[in-house]
Amino acid sequence: MTIELLETHKVFKGEQRKYSHYSTVLDCDMVFSLYLPEASEKQPTSLIWWLSGLTCTDDNFSQKSGFQKAASDQEVAVVIPDTSPRGEDVPDEDRYDLGKGAGFYLNATQEPWAKHYQMYSYLTEELPEIVHQLIPDFSGKESIMGHSMGGHGALVLGLKEPQRFKAISAFAPILTPSEVPWGKEAFSAYLGTDKASWKEWDATYLIKQVEQAPPVFVTQGTNDQFYEEQLKEDIFLKAAEGKTVQYQAEPGHDHSYFTIATFIKKHIQFHINELNR
Amino acid sequence: MTIELLETHKVFKGEQRKYSHYSTVLDCDMVFSLYLPEASEKQPTSLIWWLSGLTCTDDNFSQKSGFQKAASDQEVAVVIPDTSPRGEDVPDEDRYDLGKGAGFYLNATQEPWAKHYQMYSYLTEELPEIVHQLIPDFSGKESIMGHSMGGHGALVLGLKEPQRFKAISAFAPILTPSEVPWGKEAFSAYLGTDKASWKEWDATYLIKQVEQAPPVFVTQGTNDQFYEEQLKEDIFLKAAEGKTVQYQAEPGHDHSYFTIATFIKKHIQFHINELNR
Repeated sequence: MTIELLETHKVFKGEQRKYSHYSTVLDCDMVFSLYLPEASEKQPTSLIWWLSGLTCTDDNFSQKSGFQKAASDQEVAVVIPDTSPRGEDVPDEDRYDLGKGAGFYLNATQEPWAKHYQMYSYLTEELPEIVHQLIPDFSGKESIMGHSMGGHGALVLGLKEPQRFKAISAFAPILTPSEVPWGKEAFSAYLGTDKASWKEWDATYLIKQVEQAPPVFVTQGTNDQFYEEQLKEDIFLKAAEGKTVQYQAEPGHDHSYFTIATFIKKHIQFHINELNR
Repeated sequence: MTIELLETHKVFKGEQRKYSHYSTVLDCDMVFSLYLPEASEKQPTSLIWWLSGLTCTDDNFSQKSGFQKAASDQEVAVVIPDTSPRGEDVPDEDRYDLGKGAGFYLNATQEPWAKHYQMYSYLTEELPEIVHQLIPDFSGKESIMGHSMGGHGALVLGLKEPQRFKAISAFAPILTPSEVPWGKEAFSAYLGTDKASWKEWDATYLIKQVEQAPPVFVTQGTNDQFYEEQLKEDIFLKAAEGKTVQYQAEPGHDHSYFTIATFIKKHIQFHINELNR
């Protein structure tokens, strides 16, 4: 297994790195970004996963959110995977919400997607082993967050592996993918039209099932152009009754990285509180 | 004169806006970005100009530096012009360091550049009138900063108009353009080969000439790939003897926006100290 370091940039007291590797699960070359805080003598380093939204690569969050200030101050590592398998051999469609850049963090069962679109297995089986080894003095503690499609991904991974992830947070997540256009189109293509197969990839179903859910924190801008059609929270919040969910509507904020930049410090503080318990 | 608001995004307590307008000085349509802090009752709002480096548009600084946190906290407006004239009618070359994205903030005298490449007049005569009117309760106080080619631009504008600009700061600026490849190639093309005409666009010449220079603050990463060939400081610092210049080498930092993100708060604090005097 060869991991190649492509870039490293000092930012605040840590380093923003970019790596490439061949993924056997996805059967293609992949790139991911990793922020490593300055070595600390205070405590071992924990890891937050960030999952990005439609059209993104590992660059959007590393370049546009400014998360490194809070990660440096809190001495936490942050890994940013890509949003789908990549490369010329990987099936794609000429649209932004299916195919490359739109893997939805699930394991596809339908053709032509099933061979490469196995992002869930990639993120839960293959990539963790790689990333854990890159963190000096790793604490073993992890949590997960994301934006939009990546907010859906963070909830699905966090709720399917509640022992592994100490906290889940999301900006403008797709909370009910089985009920909204983005999710219905993607699930139909990747999983087929039998909706029974959709449930295990739907946070609203999962949060009802899981016995001990990690605490969840959601930020949603009230001026988000996708809110009404794709991101409504009522069905999810009803399903989440009895679980620890903090849903924060932020007046005037939209779907952009400017909203993430504004509230990322608060999200990282939420994760640190849970990781340090 | 028509100014069109293209975008507005809430970020921290203010708004990141993008405008377009027709520039009579440049004879083309131009775009600029403007951060407006939340309306304050404490004091009128001052304005910091940011000039970007080679290949950039108004987007790089607004999306990658995270400057909005400090600008919001300090309640200061920040305007980000483009780096050259734009459009199909504007001459260009198939290289990153001449033509579009590489206007060098001067007034060109040579063909084919002279008709459109008048960035200095644009930034000192036309754009200020537009921007000042967009800031509610403008204090009339301005300062200027920039990166690389834009650091050169900030120094040139600030030193040519020392009464107007209360402070100058720069990240990895081209301090001696007449002596380094980037500057020599651009000046030869835009100004001609008579080096006498280069002096008024060279910070090292200007800082020697100006009687009362605004205070200058420079941040230079020691791991900057362009440092040795393009960005050395010794000649400039010698020329600046007797002026207020703080030159800060930052170990391990490179030429990227990650360095800007790390130190932008410190730069904005420097500007605020001078603007509030």
